[in-house]
Order: sequence, then structure tokens, then C-alpha cells
Amino acid sequence: MMIERLAIVGCGLMGGSVALALRRAGLVRHIAGFSRSAASGRRAVELGVIDEACDSAASAARGADVVLLSVPVASTLEVLQGIRSTLAPQALCMDVGSTKRDVVSAARAALGADIAGFVPSHPIAGKERAGVDAADADLYRGRRVILTPLAETDPARTRRARALWEAMGSVVSDMSPEAHDRAFAAVSHLPHLLAFAYVNGVARQPEGASMLQLGGPGFRDFTRIAGGEPAMWRDILLANRDEVLAQAASFRQALGEIERAMLAGDAQALMAQIAEPSALRGQWALGAGMGSAVSGVGSKPAVDEDVA
Amino acid sequence: MMIERLAIVGCGLMGGSVALALRRAGLVRHIAGFSRSAASGRRAVELGVIDEACDSAASAARGADVVLLSVPVASTLEVLQGIRSTLAPQALCMDVGSTKRDVVSAARAALGADIAGFVPSHPIAGKERAGVDAADADLYRGRRVILTPLAETDPARTRRARALWEAMGSVVSDMSPEAHDRAFAAVSHLPHLLAFAYVNGVARQPEGASMLQLGGPGFRDFTRIAGGEPAMWRDILLANRDEVLAQAASFRQALGEIERAMLAGDAQALMAQIAEPSALRGQWALGAGMGSAVSGVGSKPAVDEDVA
Repeated sequence: MMIERLAIVGCGLMGGSVALALRRAGLVRHIAGFSRSAASGRRAVELGVIDEACDSAASAARGADVVLLSVPVASTLEVLQGIRSTLAPQALCMDVGSTKRDVVSAARAALGADIAGFVPSHPIAGKERAGVDAADADLYRGRRVILTPLAETDPARTRRARALWEAMGSVVSDMSPEAHDRAFAAVSHLPHLLAFAYVNGVARQPEGASMLQLGGPGFRDFTRIAGGEPAMWRDILLANRDEVLAQAASFRQALGEIERAMLAGDAQALMAQIAEPSALRGQWALGAGMGSAVSGVGSKPAVDEDVA
Repeated sequence: MMIERLAIVGCGLMGGSVALALRRAGLVRHIAGFSRSAASGRRAVELGVIDEACDSAASAARGADVVLLSVPVASTLEVLQGIRSTLAPQALCMDVGSTKRDVVSAARAALGADIAGFVPSHPIAGKERAGVDAADADLYRGRRVILTPLAETDPARTRRARALWEAMGSVVSDMSPEAHDRAFAAVSHLPHLLAFAYVNGVARQPEGASMLQLGGPGFRDFTRIAGGEPAMWRDILLANRDEVLAQAASFRQALGEIERAMLAGDAQALMAQIAEPSALRGQWALGAGMGSAVSGVGSKPAVDEDVA
């Protein structure tokens, strides 16, 4: 299980946190890192996140037994093309991207037969602050990680990927890239799209600015994800466009049903449209499908609700 | 300022919290309460929230100098009709409803000329738990309270209402009932409508149940308000129907713009649609607009973000 050389390509929050978590687990001897910004690389060394800042992804990956890509998903093809020739034959390569079909096709195009060593990974974790200064050995503890291994993926590499994420405290499950992208369109990408649209819809009204000042705790929580990093969300929404648009269509239909009940003044139909999601949400808990090991992790109940 | 007899009509979370807050402020000698459920009334006495459980709203209100209505907004007309003949001439009467135009027309219909004593009030506060057991002397501390006095309202009664809410720690502002309902359609009622529709849209898919299990912290916060009390939200959405539907139309337009940018694969247009709400939400803080006295109150930053 010991990693002789871990390469972190992209020393930010996600990559830096993997470095810290694996080091703390005592699973890594040497960590080489590369960041497009030389300052980030230096800072990562300064903070003890990596041991060595390399001047290219290829030199970081050279001779590494584990390579972690933590770069914008849209850069995957270029980064993998750049490191392919330096990858050790038995190297395990993983990413941390929020979409998987686009990462998989970039990996197929860049790696050819070497795709056997690539295990697409999506840890469901993050923080409001980005950058290596926010890196945290506990970022992945109690969080779900989805692996989407392919028919060509070497099963030994998938096992190693799973073991490493588990050593970081994560709960690992497998899905196909297609099922992953469909499910995350529903539970993550669409909510972001709706939150962006909602803030635009209010802010663009003549009284928008003064209205926004009246938002309470419900508004605060509902719109928190609208503060997401624009470039990352642009890329996710484009990469998973078809699934997200299909989810948006399903949402529009559900919205229309409530609007029609309101328009008709049909209290009974409206009650049915509200009682169902209210009951479902009342039963929902973060991490409830993850098994008893982490049940309740992170499921801190909100302390107040905007009943306004 | 001292209240000789405070009548709480509806001894639940909201009414019970007013009783506790005014008692702690040393501003009330005797608290009479009425709840439709006799058990709630007894429990309120047991908890020391009220001094006396009355068997009707009218007997609680008889001789009271301040009457607080904390009943479903749809019951306002009936309750005010029931207490009008017992109201003392100088009594101040307030409610805590989330909509104001419907409360005002119920009050006009029930009180006639006595509407001078009615100061419509909306404290922006609440909790996930309802009922008198959840009542809390600090519920209104640092929270905004909107008063919507009318042309007929006695200015002395409005001043007293303001002073009482301030004594409970609230930050009071005035609006017209129309402006109130328009603004809260935008910042509270529409978000609830969207959250209900969103959960329905996902849950009704064949894979809905397993998708919902994958929701992370972003999903948790975005959908928290979908857990709201169905009967209360049915009433609010019907009472403020026209404003909420107008806000929904404005939302649909904003949603359509993002969908069109995605469909066109127009990364630049999409970026513009996301960067604007992201920047706005980044600057937003709960209670900013309320003045320095309470700046930052309740604006605890979220600790993690679903960047998935």
C-alpha cells in the first residue's frame, strides 16, 4: 500500500488535501507537486503539503506510483497527454473531477492502452475557500467518493484507488460514468443552475437590491451554492449539458404543476404538491445511504429555519 | 411601556417566544394565553410561558393592553371577529404572519374602525421545531421585524409595537403591506416554491430515491426549506399567489437564459450568467442592511461547500 512517490498535479484545495491525508495516514514517502502557478507550488512546499515543487506535470509524474490530477476538468486531456510518456507502467492515476464522462473520454484520447491505470474518481467534498492554504487532511473524512472504473481499467488499480480513499476516511462506491453524470446532474448540477438563475431573477428587478437585503436564513442556505466558482461551474454545466438540461426539464414540469395548483386556487392539489417533498426532505439525511460506519457524519441539523 | 395584561392567541413557537422575551425584558405583569388545543395551553402554563390558559381567544384578550395573534394566517379573520368586542379601546393588537395584504384585509373586515389598534407585524425568525416546547426568549434577538402600519393605524400604537419588538432585541423596519408581500415573494416564498418543485422533480424519476441519497452539503442546504410545514406553505403560497407567480415568471426567464447559453455551447454567455450571481452572493450577508447594531448577527458562514 505504501506509495514511494506521489505526484500531485494541481496543488490546490483538493490535491493538497489528498497529499495531507495520505501523509498523515503514513502511506507516502515522497510527494512531488506541480502547479501552473509557481507561487502555489512554492507555497505548497512551504506549508509541508508537498516535498518538492516540479516545473512540469511530466517531471512530477516521472517515476510516481500514484498520480493525482486535481486540475480543471477541461484541462484533463492536455495534462494527461503531457504526462503519458513519463508514467510508470504500474502507476495508478486518479482525478477528482465533478463530471466523469468527459474525463473518461479525455483519458481514452490521451492515454490509449495506458487507460488501464486510470481510475476516474469523484470525492464529494469541498470548501468555500480554494487554494493550497485551505488544504485539510480531514477534507475527505466521512465523505463519499465515487469511482467509475471502465471495462479496460486494471482491477488491481481500482482496488488500490479504493484502499487509498478509504485510508483517507472516505466511503467509496462504484458507478458507471453515465450513471454518475446523470445522478449528479440531478443532485448537484441542477441545484447550482437553479440557484444561479434564482439570484439573477431577483437581482435584475428594479427593486432587486433592496429585496435581497431582506433575505433571511432560508434565503441564505438556498442561495449558498450560487456563490460557487464561476469558471468551474461553467465547465461542469457545459461538460454535463445534456443531463443537466434533461433534469431542468423535469424540474420545469414539477414547477408547472405547483404553479397550476396555485393559479386554480386548488388548496388540496397544492397541499399534495408540498406535503410530498416536505416529508421526503424531513427524512433525508446527509450520508444516509453510506452505511453505518459514517451514518450521521456531517449531517448536522440546521439550527434555524426561515419560516418567513 | 409596562404591559399589565398580555394576551397570546396561539401559544406555539412564535407566540410563546414573544411571551418569554417580553417577560425576560421585565415588561409584562400577567400573560393570558389561548390555544385551540387545550393541551398546548396547559403545557404553556407548565413551562411558565403564560400565567393563565383561557378557554377562548376572547377571554384571553379581555382587558389586555397588548394582544398578540400567533395563529395560521388563514384564521386571522375568525379570530379577530371573536375578540373584537372584548378588546380594550387602547389595546395594541399585532400578528406574526408571513404575508401582510391578506392579514390587513382580514383585519379591516373584522375590526372596522378598531383597525386603528392593529399593527401588522412580520418577525423574520423561526425554528425547525414548532410548538410551545420550542419557544425561546432569544428567537427574535438580532432578527428583522417588518411592520406594515396603515393610514388608519394609530401612530402611538405603531410606536409601542416598535418599542416592544426592539425590547425583544429585534431590528424594526416599516414597509407598506404591498411592498412587503412583493419583496417576500421574491426572497422567501419563491425559494420555497422552487425547493418543493426541485425535490418533486428529482424524486418522481425512476431512479429518484437512489439519486437523492447522493446529495452532498450543497443539496442539503439548497433543499432545507423544502422541509417546511406543508399547511403553512400552502396558505402562504395561496395568500400571496399573484406576487409569487410573478416572481416565478421572472425566475423562468432567468433560467431560460442560462439554458440557452448551455444549449448553444456558448461558454462566454454562460460565464456571464454565472459570474453575476456568484459575485452578488459572495458579497451578501444575512442582516447586512440592518444597520451596525446587529451587523453580522446570525451571519455564520457555512463551513463547507458542495463543489461536486
